[in-house]
Amino acid sequence: MRAFRLNGAAEPLKLVTETDPQPGKGEVLVDLKAATLNYRDLIVKEGRYGGDQRDDLIPLSDGAGIISAVGQGVSADRVGERVAIGFMPKWTEGPFTAAKQADALGGGYVDGVLAEKIVVPATGVVTLPDDWSFSEGAAYPCAGVTAWNCLFGGRGVRPGETVLVEGTGGVSTFALQFAKSVGARVIATSSSPEKAARVRELGAEEVIDYVKTPDWGSRAAEIAGGEGVDHVVEVGGSGTINQALEAVRPGGEVALVGVLTGFGGEVNTGAILMKAIYVRGVYVGSVADLSEAIRSGIRPIIDKVFSFEQADAAFERLKSGAHRGKVGIEIGQ
Amino acid sequence: MRAFRLNGAAEPLKLVTETDPQPGKGEVLVDLKAATLNYRDLIVKEGRYGGDQRDDLIPLSDGAGIISAVGQGVSADRVGERVAIGFMPKWTEGPFTAAKQADALGGGYVDGVLAEKIVVPATGVVTLPDDWSFSEGAAYPCAGVTAWNCLFGGRGVRPGETVLVEGTGGVSTFALQFAKSVGARVIATSSSPEKAARVRELGAEEVIDYVKTPDWGSRAAEIAGGEGVDHVVEVGGSGTINQALEAVRPGGEVALVGVLTGFGGEVNTGAILMKAIYVRGVYVGSVADLSEAIRSGIRPIIDKVFSFEQADAAFERLKSGAHRGKVGIEIGQ
Amino acid sequence: MRAFRLNGAAEPLKLVTETDPQPGKGEVLVDLKAATLNYRDLIVKEGRYGGDQRDDLIPLSDGAGIISAVGQGVSADRVGERVAIGFMPKWTEGPFTAAKQADALGGGYVDGVLAEKIVVPATGVVTLPDDWSFSEGAAYPCAGVTAWNCLFGGRGVRPGETVLVEGTGGVSTFALQFAKSVGARVIATSSSPEKAARVRELGAEEVIDYVKTPDWGSRAAEIAGGEGVDHVVEVGGSGTINQALEAVRPGGEVALVGVLTGFGGEVNTGAILMKAIYVRGVYVGSVADLSEAIRSGIRPIIDKVFSFEQADAAFERLKSGAHRGKVGIEIGQ
Amino acid sequence: MRAFRLNGAAEPLKLVTETDPQPGKGEVLVDLKAATLNYRDLIVKEGRYGGDQRDDLIPLSDGAGIISAVGQGVSADRVGERVAIGFMPKWTEGPFTAAKQADALGGGYVDGVLAEKIVVPATGVVTLPDDWSFSEGAAYPCAGVTAWNCLFGGRGVRPGETVLVEGTGGVSTFALQFAKSVGARVIATSSSPEKAARVRELGAEEVIDYVKTPDWGSRAAEIAGGEGVDHVVEVGGSGTINQALEAVRPGGEVALVGVLTGFGGEVNTGAILMKAIYVRGVYVGSVADLSEAIRSGIRPIIDKVFSFEQADAAFERLKSGAHRGKVGIEIGQ
Repeated sequence: MRAFRLNGAAEPLKLVTETDPQPGKGEVLVDLKAATLNYRDLIVKEGRYGGDQRDDLIPLSDGAGIISAVGQGVSADRVGERVAIGFMPKWTEGPFTAAKQADALGGGYVDGVLAEKIVVPATGVVTLPDDWSFSEGAAYPCAGVTAWNCLFGGRGVRPGETVLVEGTGGVSTFALQFAKSVGARVIATSSSPEKAARVRELGAEEVIDYVKTPDWGSRAAEIAGGEGVDHVVEVGGSGTINQALEAVRPGGEVALVGVLTGFGGEVNTGAILMKAIYVRGVYVGSVADLSEAIRSGIRPIIDKVFSFEQADAAFERLKSGAHRGKVGIEIGQ
Repeated sequence: MRAFRLNGAAEPLKLVTETDPQPGKGEVLVDLKAATLNYRDLIVKEGRYGGDQRDDLIPLSDGAGIISAVGQGVSADRVGERVAIGFMPKWTEGPFTAAKQADALGGGYVDGVLAEKIVVPATGVVTLPDDWSFSEGAAYPCAGVTAWNCLFGGRGVRPGETVLVEGTGGVSTFALQFAKSVGARVIATSSSPEKAARVRELGAEEVIDYVKTPDWGSRAAEIAGGEGVDHVVEVGGSGTINQALEAVRPGGEVALVGVLTGFGGEVNTGAILMKAIYVRGVYVGSVADLSEAIRSGIRPIIDKVFSFEQADAAFERLKSGAHRGKVGIEIGQ
Repeated sequence: MRAFRLNGAAEPLKLVTETDPQPGKGEVLVDLKAATLNYRDLIVKEGRYGGDQRDDLIPLSDGAGIISAVGQGVSADRVGERVAIGFMPKWTEGPFTAAKQADALGGGYVDGVLAEKIVVPATGVVTLPDDWSFSEGAAYPCAGVTAWNCLFGGRGVRPGETVLVEGTGGVSTFALQFAKSVGARVIATSSSPEKAARVRELGAEEVIDYVKTPDWGSRAAEIAGGEGVDHVVEVGGSGTINQALEAVRPGGEVALVGVLTGFGGEVNTGAILMKAIYVRGVYVGSVADLSEAIRSGIRPIIDKVFSFEQADAAFERLKSGAHRGKVGIEIGQ
Repeated sequence: MRAFRLNGAAEPLKLVTETDPQPGKGEVLVDLKAATLNYRDLIVKEGRYGGDQRDDLIPLSDGAGIISAVGQGVSADRVGERVAIGFMPKWTEGPFTAAKQADALGGGYVDGVLAEKIVVPATGVVTLPDDWSFSEGAAYPCAGVTAWNCLFGGRGVRPGETVLVEGTGGVSTFALQFAKSVGARVIATSSSPEKAARVRELGAEEVIDYVKTPDWGSRAAEIAGGEGVDHVVEVGGSGTINQALEAVRPGGEVALVGVLTGFGGEVNTGAILMKAIYVRGVYVGSVADLSEAIRSGIRPIIDKVFSFEQADAAFERLKSGAHRGKVGIEIGQ
């Protein structure tokens, strides 16, 4: 099979040809048809993901394809099944543990999906709806599941509640879609008039320009009315969390999912206490969450899909920040 | 009635004699018999509680006494009832809101319980068990309810889980007792051998000296075994929260209740995300929580009880840090 | 004011003229503008509601109107506010208790809303959206809140789940609307082709004729796919619950809300156990639930609205079973 | 290995010698050291468990032993580990499904633990505390986990709440112990003075003689005070559930776990609705539940332990109803 491997932060990915992997007991071989990129993939490529990362990893966590072979104990009927692959294929269900996290694809020591084939546990994949493209399926494993977990993994957003999403990245766009799909109001932030227009098209009732309105948290609370926003999908991390804490109502929920602005920083812990806020760390989710999210039937927003050979261009697209929705790569099609 | 009022940060409290308050519709008059102190009371006395605080407030939030008169619509049978008073007497039940918080006793503009009488809503008090002293009842409204909410307001501690409590203050002592009462293991921190001995007597399996072991969070995780501690009762605030995040297992819960070390500071938001931690701000609780906590039957640890006239000495005792359990004041006995 | 009072099961309601009620402390006077009927009202009128019922009650629980006067302690600004009235106006929030249930309007000893004016606690009403009619507001207190509680009071229906609703009465119609509003699939039952067509218009994906298909529970499970239906809104009671237990997937939820077919009967308790089903009794809900339900913005389906003078005809309409959605009565308009 | 197989309802079990099973990939071989009996085992032996049951099954679901060999992919370090085996070894964690139920040991087509060896998935066993006997470990998988799930799988019993348990069988005895371990009050039922004395020893505050007091449900509500009992562990099934519904407070929980008195019957569905009761079917639980339950450290009550050769006598003991706590069988010791 062909695959791309990391080749240093500044170098293009390296195209390699390798022996096809073989499914063992309880495993399936998936012929990958599409992958999508997440911000995490940029960090991995740039060697900023953490100390234990392999230099020559096959990158990307999010893929979809067709089961082409099965190992012992897996029904041969599954050959031909169109599937998306879980971000952590061994986290089948149940609560998060460090052990389950260990095998997240495309990071650390675990090869990812920027390849023509991959072997994963049979319990690590989710059947795609017939009318979905592989790119749509490949959009879900990290960003879609993360957004799902943000909105439904804690206290569950309800019709008529207000949700604040930040920016127009993959998780935020999914969160916007999921929130609208259950009749919630959405406030988004963006400094780009064009992106603002786009999120309005997707249903956001209000968009705040965070450059012109540096205290956008208070502004969001004001727009929400009552005592503030019910749920915040906090993708910025330490640089934005204090605005999130400002925006959210007493007793509300902040799903902390991102590190765009850094892994640590000054946080208004007094606000967490005095407003009795739930700050809930969200690290993607299980295969069961992926199944639930896809069952919603919400079609993801795909930005631009590159050919396999143009994989580096896909990374550039994501890095540029010009994308809206998920950046994809077609594989073997 | 006699009462003490604030008289400036550096001055002793001022003893005043005032007209007795009268219960209106739906209210009761409580003849106070005991009060206890919390760290919050020191902040209030020292004028550091926030911008809107009255200079001449009757301090203290936590009191117990006897209903001596009732207003319209309240059964006269309630006269003679021995009660503890809710920290926020209008927060009867249900989720936390800013509106419910507004009337917290002994802070801001709302007179507290360092007086011989107080009028509160009939729904703002909880009947005491017959064999409890008034000091025991007065120990619960802030510290007891806060600790209860930390352990049972979120995902509920269970037999065999491990709980980390910090220091030996009021909330931590209650949390230790509640955790032991449901068969959890308790790890405590203290730098004083004498206090360490005391928390061991109360049932703590392990005590870590946080001075000798500055990375006490990791040490707690190690002692807990598995992937770390299940619940942390985080009373320190921004100065200790990163150790709490180190101690807690992936998917575990940190109840953020204290500001002993400051209202804001550097927080490892990356850990919250990567370990999918629940950081739950706890701001005391409702009258229903007080009722539930007292129903547990757990007798609070009383440090030393001062006479009404010695109210200033009680503040000194708390400030000294030498206390173990709740510092109390007898009133009108 | 004018009001209708019960006058025996077989007799028309009796129109009376009485002194206007006056709001006391914490109360508001509402000039009623609309009421709607529930199946419960038929039981009450026919004297089958239970032993403690007054013969001369003002019937109906569900009303909306305008605040025309306020008692002591209520802001005069509230005069003019358009409101719906809680089914149990003293159940403000929090868990259900017998004490809170005691004041359900229009049943037992408590006069209801088939009158020009009513006094209720200021905390017992919910502001209506500006563009809603009073009939729409009056549709919510019993049927709307019950359906809301069925779908969101337990484990919360999610996008992509399947909900089974029985028939086309008030609760079932609301449940259908709420379920569709969050992207769930809905299976309905009806023996009338015309009603079946109607629920399809409202979004039901499938309708089962329960006369032609007596084992409609199994059929619903089959349509749902997987292991069965996720949520059942069980309005029939003992005569239908075994079909509901057949329909629901292992681990699924049956919200038991109705007694249309009787208060007791043969129940397959073995199925509850072996399928680990949650059977959750739902008895309307709190004023907080009413507020949340109305905040959803879902406009209720109104069947036919009668004039105040035609109140008896409204009862007949409901009794006929020909209605779809809520039967209403205009008051003082 | 030696094993016992069913031999018809009226016949003694048949002792057979068979080839030792071998662990496959991801599996372990357990040398069984102890088993315990449940009421279910009587039903199985008597051929009343359901249509699909094998005539020559190895009975019993609950066993403990030592890992003596491991299959591929399982660390050899696990050899020598003392373990209890999950009732449904493939239900690792997460919500109940029919698929997970399919492999419950010792029923239907799945051989159980009344044998010297068994092969199960490595994820289907739980390590025993060092100081527990194998009989203690073998007491947990069905009855212990069921009782745990009753008390902690729903809303979680808390200190000061009241729990009603019925009789003195395995589940009820565990439930009594668990409830006491978290500081709840326990009301038990029994018609035997001797058994009543025994449950008092174990901590039950009150025992009701259900023969002398046929309306024991109302009596339990009265003893509980307030509005009734918070939790009922309902082991009787259709013959006792109406008393359970009488006992429980509005908004309280009935964990429906038993079928001692039949699989179906007349149920007061009106009470479920009007009291807004949660009736929660409990069908044992997952391996994760077993792990949590054992982590509690609560030592089970063992009635009498028979030798392997006396297996039939163990069934007789259970059938006699004279046992208190779990009836056990030693294997290969």
